[in-house]
Amino acid sequence: MAEESQKWVLMVTAQTPTNIAVIKYWGKRDENLILAINDSISVTLDPAHLCTTTTVAVSPAFNQDRMWLNGKEISLSGGRYQNCLREIRARANDVEDEKRGIKITKNDWENLHVHIASYNNFPTAAGLASSAAGFACLVYSLAKLMNVQEDNGKLSAIARQGSGSACRSLYGGFVKWVMGKEENGSDSVAIQLVDEKHWDELVIIIAVVSSRQKETSSTSGMLETVETSALIEHRAKEVVPKRIIQMEEAIQKRDFATFTHLTCADSNQFHAVCLDTSPPIFYMNDTSHRIISCVEKWNRSEGTPQVAYTFDAGPNAVLIARNRTSAALLLQRLLFHFPPNSETDLNSYVIGDKSILKDAGIPEIKDVEALPPPPEIKDKVPVQKCKGEISYFICTRPGRGPVLISDESQALLNPDTGLPK
Amino acid sequence: MAEESQKWVLMVTAQTPTNIAVIKYWGKRDENLILAINDSISVTLDPAHLCTTTTVAVSPAFNQDRMWLNGKEISLSGGRYQNCLREIRARANDVEDEKRGIKITKNDWENLHVHIASYNNFPTAAGLASSAAGFACLVYSLAKLMNVQEDNGKLSAIARQGSGSACRSLYGGFVKWVMGKEENGSDSVAIQLVDEKHWDELVIIIAVVSSRQKETSSTSGMLETVETSALIEHRAKEVVPKRIIQMEEAIQKRDFATFTHLTCADSNQFHAVCLDTSPPIFYMNDTSHRIISCVEKWNRSEGTPQVAYTFDAGPNAVLIARNRTSAALLLQRLLFHFPPNSETDLNSYVIGDKSILKDAGIPEIKDVEALPPPPEIKDKVPVQKCKGEISYFICTRPGRGPVLISDESQALLNPDTGLPK
Repeated sequence: MAEESQKWVLMVTAQTPTNIAVIKYWGKRDENLILAINDSISVTLDPAHLCTTTTVAVSPAFNQDRMWLNGKEISLSGGRYQNCLREIRARANDVEDEKRGIKITKNDWENLHVHIASYNNFPTAAGLASSAAGFACLVYSLAKLMNVQEDNGKLSAIARQGSGSACRSLYGGFVKWVMGKEENGSDSVAIQLVDEKHWDELVIIIAVVSSRQKETSSTSGMLETVETSALIEHRAKEVVPKRIIQMEEAIQKRDFATFTHLTCADSNQFHAVCLDTSPPIFYMNDTSHRIISCVEKWNRSEGTPQVAYTFDAGPNAVLIARNRTSAALLLQRLLFHFPPNSETDLNSYVIGDKSILKDAGIPEIKDVEALPPPPEIKDKVPVQKCKGEISYFICTRPGRGPVLISDESQALLNPDTGLPK
Repeated sequence: MAEESQKWVLMVTAQTPTNIAVIKYWGKRDENLILAINDSISVTLDPAHLCTTTTVAVSPAFNQDRMWLNGKEISLSGGRYQNCLREIRARANDVEDEKRGIKITKNDWENLHVHIASYNNFPTAAGLASSAAGFACLVYSLAKLMNVQEDNGKLSAIARQGSGSACRSLYGGFVKWVMGKEENGSDSVAIQLVDEKHWDELVIIIAVVSSRQKETSSTSGMLETVETSALIEHRAKEVVPKRIIQMEEAIQKRDFATFTHLTCADSNQFHAVCLDTSPPIFYMNDTSHRIISCVEKWNRSEGTPQVAYTFDAGPNAVLIARNRTSAALLLQRLLFHFPPNSETDLNSYVIGDKSILKDAGIPEIKDVEALPPPPEIKDKVPVQKCKGEISYFICTRPGRGPVLISDESQALLNPDTGLPK
């Protein structure tokens, strides 16, 4: 170790995307190692709109491991953080910065402490899988800092021990989490099915649903489902394996109709096994149901599916449109049924890739008010408008995997003190 | 036939209860004969609060079969009505009224027409299984008119062809619909497990939920589930048979804890397979979810279950309390969370057996406003009051099977004309 200067701080900053499962992960066979009872498949979301940025730093001046999430210090004492830190440290290698005269040998890492600062560019509490991006970014940035040589697949097995779905955030495009067979979880890893360029027509719109309800955490929820549902085992052993094969093929062929059928059916089945849990778990609410009805009605009227929907452990809808044209038509429908509250401006109601708003012919709030009912709504049925049920929409697309940020100005820790900027 | 006088009208009036399944019927193996894919068990509700009254009349003066439901003429051309009429006529026998000089021979029935008037003492559209009571009453009253000798079990196989769950309304107490094995449905009949005196402590409170949504009919809903759900077969073949055995034992032993566990789990699983249908079917709404949460929280805090809940193909909750004490405590909780709208008076908000209101210490509307939060609600959680989400509550209990009404003043048809009074 560079004993002559105890003041240096070595830092790495990385950015990692979040992901949304289209074949769902629900239920563990090992709570500590986080091993799933079935394979799952996800699409990685464009980090431009939803991602975690993490800066990790090491210095001989640090006297304990510390972490800050969105500027607030949080405890690292939880088993999940400890597992990730231990596994990464165990794979650390020599690191040398000749210019700065820093040399860390493989064995030094056990005695060196790290500082971690993490930031989500979207609301942590919005139920948008922030822990997936968060643990993926933690593991990825620590691995780079400590010169870990393992590839992203091996790193995914470490991120998995922080949060199951985090392993799928180690790659862009479409990603499969293979449940694996080994007791130690070594083969329970993420693999990339296709990269983000393979199916780049897809457009994703997330409806963040206003909710008063406190939701069951997915950790305790899936534990209760495995313990009490009479349907979960059948789902995991009989239903999902077939869907995984079909979904891989649909993705390879860019077969949107099959993709939609499988995505919607699997989201609904995940919520079905939650309902079959004792006591039952409800993640979707009436607003979620209304979004599904709107999409189902439109898809049926078009003959071929235009939009797939999927819901995670909360009421938010993730809507995957076949292309920009469909996305614009979808946004028209969403804004027709769920107009913003009068005090909300359009600019904060539709965020992310706002160009979809222009495609939809809705540059201004007055254009929302002027939207005609979608043609698939029959005249007999009274039109239902649900103001205030949605907090905001995020327009995005499939995106890339983790990257290192070399621009030091984007680091979240001060390069001199190793404390949050 | 009594050719000398063409003007006579012969009438029978009967009253039949409705029923609520505690192990659910969902899915048919024969659409025409209405044969279920699993056994089901129900509790018959006291006809004092929920029942159908039907008067059937025959006269040589009638020139076609006609029916009136709640005073409005409806068509009998549907296959379900025709099946019931045909099956009953095929079993008709000689009928003689010596006093009035009326004699109908077995073979006359094929050429005689009937008039049917039916009336529900509860809102038909409230989603309270009016078709179960209705078809049971139609078949029962016609069987009495035509001197059919078959017992209620045999009659249940005919009522089943009108509406599956109708077969269970041929008996009081707890009733099992045995799915049967025969292709012609002859062994798909209802049997009484215990009569209404066996477990007479139970009190039932129905929460009729205000709903804007048009629901999927149960006929098309269960057809779609059987065609598209990947879980329904596992439920019907693996889960329900075990639950039927356990439920029969719980009822025999009056084991309320097991009864509650099975009733709630099976209601939730029925709604789970609805959600697993493509497109998904939602019968419960946010109000239904809130009622479940309220009951689950209370049961958990008491250690032993006080109330079971079950939901049919709609958002209404049927709550079965272990005894009057629990029912009074339940009503306090329900009125605390779901107070009536300011324009609703308590007398029309809680109907049926209103004595429960007095047990609950709530004789007047001001007592609703003064209700303290139930002790199981933690101080931290903001109390949620949901005014207007419930239309009304019906307080009732398990009840008896069909009866003949000999008091002619209660007949729904004019004894001279055979037309509605």
